[in-house]
Amino acid sequence: MKNQIHGGDIYRNQGVLDFSTNTNPLGIPKALYGVLANSIHKIEHYPDIACERLRDELERVEGIKKEQIICGNGAAELIYSLVYGVKPKKALIQSPTFLEYEQALKSVDCQIEVFESKRENEFRLDEKVLDRIHEGLDMMFLCNPNNPTGILVNPQLMIEIGKRCKENEVILVLDECFIEFVKEPEKYSMKQYLGRNPWIFILKAFTKTYAMAGLRLGYGMTGDINLIDKINRVTQPWTVSVLAQEAGVAALKEVSYIKESRELVERERTYLKKSMKQIGFKVLDSQANYIFFQGPDNLYDKCLERGFLIRDCSNYRGLGKGYYRIAVKTTKENEKLLKAFMELTKEE
Amino acid sequence: MKNQIHGGDIYRNQGVLDFSTNTNPLGIPKALYGVLANSIHKIEHYPDIACERLRDELERVEGIKKEQIICGNGAAELIYSLVYGVKPKKALIQSPTFLEYEQALKSVDCQIEVFESKRENEFRLDEKVLDRIHEGLDMMFLCNPNNPTGILVNPQLMIEIGKRCKENEVILVLDECFIEFVKEPEKYSMKQYLGRNPWIFILKAFTKTYAMAGLRLGYGMTGDINLIDKINRVTQPWTVSVLAQEAGVAALKEVSYIKESRELVERERTYLKKSMKQIGFKVLDSQANYIFFQGPDNLYDKCLERGFLIRDCSNYRGLGKGYYRIAVKTTKENEKLLKAFMELTKEE
Repeated sequence: MKNQIHGGDIYRNQGVLDFSTNTNPLGIPKALYGVLANSIHKIEHYPDIACERLRDELERVEGIKKEQIICGNGAAELIYSLVYGVKPKKALIQSPTFLEYEQALKSVDCQIEVFESKRENEFRLDEKVLDRIHEGLDMMFLCNPNNPTGILVNPQLMIEIGKRCKENEVILVLDECFIEFVKEPEKYSMKQYLGRNPWIFILKAFTKTYAMAGLRLGYGMTGDINLIDKINRVTQPWTVSVLAQEAGVAALKEVSYIKESRELVERERTYLKKSMKQIGFKVLDSQANYIFFQGPDNLYDKCLERGFLIRDCSNYRGLGKGYYRIAVKTTKENEKLLKAFMELTKEE
Repeated sequence: MKNQIHGGDIYRNQGVLDFSTNTNPLGIPKALYGVLANSIHKIEHYPDIACERLRDELERVEGIKKEQIICGNGAAELIYSLVYGVKPKKALIQSPTFLEYEQALKSVDCQIEVFESKRENEFRLDEKVLDRIHEGLDMMFLCNPNNPTGILVNPQLMIEIGKRCKENEVILVLDECFIEFVKEPEKYSMKQYLGRNPWIFILKAFTKTYAMAGLRLGYGMTGDINLIDKINRVTQPWTVSVLAQEAGVAALKEVSYIKESRELVERERTYLKKSMKQIGFKVLDSQANYIFFQGPDNLYDKCLERGFLIRDCSNYRGLGKGYYRIAVKTTKENEKLLKAFMELTKEE
């Protein structure tokens, strides 16, 4: 059996309210029910290995040429296939950050350098990171906003990081899987630099944005078409299922859904952060659809007893006991969790 | 865009009758429509990374312990993750055979040795292959029945191959994806040897057996639990979608569907082979749900003009122009293709 190093294990924690994974609190767009139900007969055929219609829609929505877009079985698959395609000898990651970068890099025996961001600075990336980007590196992973912290990289610093990666010929993998939940994503995304800087590879996920975690769909965008070719050469042809492609095409038409989700997340995030501080937790200034904080050591178990699954972040590199992440969900769900938080902290 | 080296491109050949892919001619079991429609809301959650319920069902149906079973995003993914997990330096493949073994091996720069089976012997594996299994090899791929030929390996020879692989510590990857369409699969499958020979890894696919090619679901069985661990370490955790897991659990209950498919395939295969010989094609003695044959050089184009997509096998290693494969489909569909074959050969 695989090791459960992430959140979301509702299968061995039946009936819980899951705050441990960070998908859109609105749930999948309603239109997807009809689209998927009407597409079931299509699973008799192999998927389109070129994801042609889906990439056409992505070109329209992202404003990036379809030749520069590659789709995968979730963004997580693309992390692995990117690493397999490039086979980096040396790579830089931040700590703490999403665990799969390191897992993927280890699987090709890549030497990993770590930029340790500091608690006192909310684990924020600062300009010292620029000195850590050198010509000996083949790849650098950055998650923006970062997971699990929800902290954004300063846009000016991000531009400098991009430049330095280009100068040193380091592939900069920017995981922007949560950027649609940020207030002004266009201020933070490096998408506009893809044309000028072919060393940037941006990862995005339908998983989070459209709450399709179980259907698996992610994509990558890059100015370097050779990189897409390298990835294709190391992956099976039929990696994106027919249903994921159908759902993806339909989801990309959901403009008001995205606007509504962003507003809901912003409102609830502000409220949750404030309330959690009042409870006595040390809450970081997340700008994403999840909140990272320090609380009592037994919080995970206490929550689970009450039917709430939260993310115990103690297994992240650079973290330890007492660090947690919760998703921003609907008002009603958030209220329930806050009530539980209040009760169990009073017990102490 | 990915290179289209396989059949099944109905996306750039709209409206054709597809004989180029080899899935169950009955289509997906009817029960799957209800199961999938009722599972759509479940895609809001991440899939069970352990595929627990699915492996429970596989344990029941295959009679193999669930700890020995690993599920993947189609059998094709497992070929790649197996190769990434093991990173073989030297491997043996047969020619001709399924293209993805070689693609996967190349992606880890594995040196590939090729056992060339001969046309005069229907590209059948003979005992000379035993001399090609040596301790310098890390892995050997065999497809049984072979794709594209449909030829089975003699069971006695297969046992000898297994022994030789064990003696020389060579992982024997047995692709039994089409074995359910053979008259007596239990006579040919090496499943019963998994306990005694931990060097055997058997691949199977829901894709073909249950016509779920678009949903992506395959699995592997092995006596070597460490091998499963190695594979898990080089793949993303959420590779099998929620819907694939739900469909898989439901499909494994379809006992009469499998029996009916096997009978249909046997009847139609016999009829197609006989009729195609009468037309003048050189037809091999396939025992699978597809037929491999030699025909006129322009057959692919002529068929496409008439609305039939067949598999041009000229891009297989060891083959060349004039080799084709068609799927065994329903009586009505097969009749249509035969009619087209007759008309176009008369034109010459």
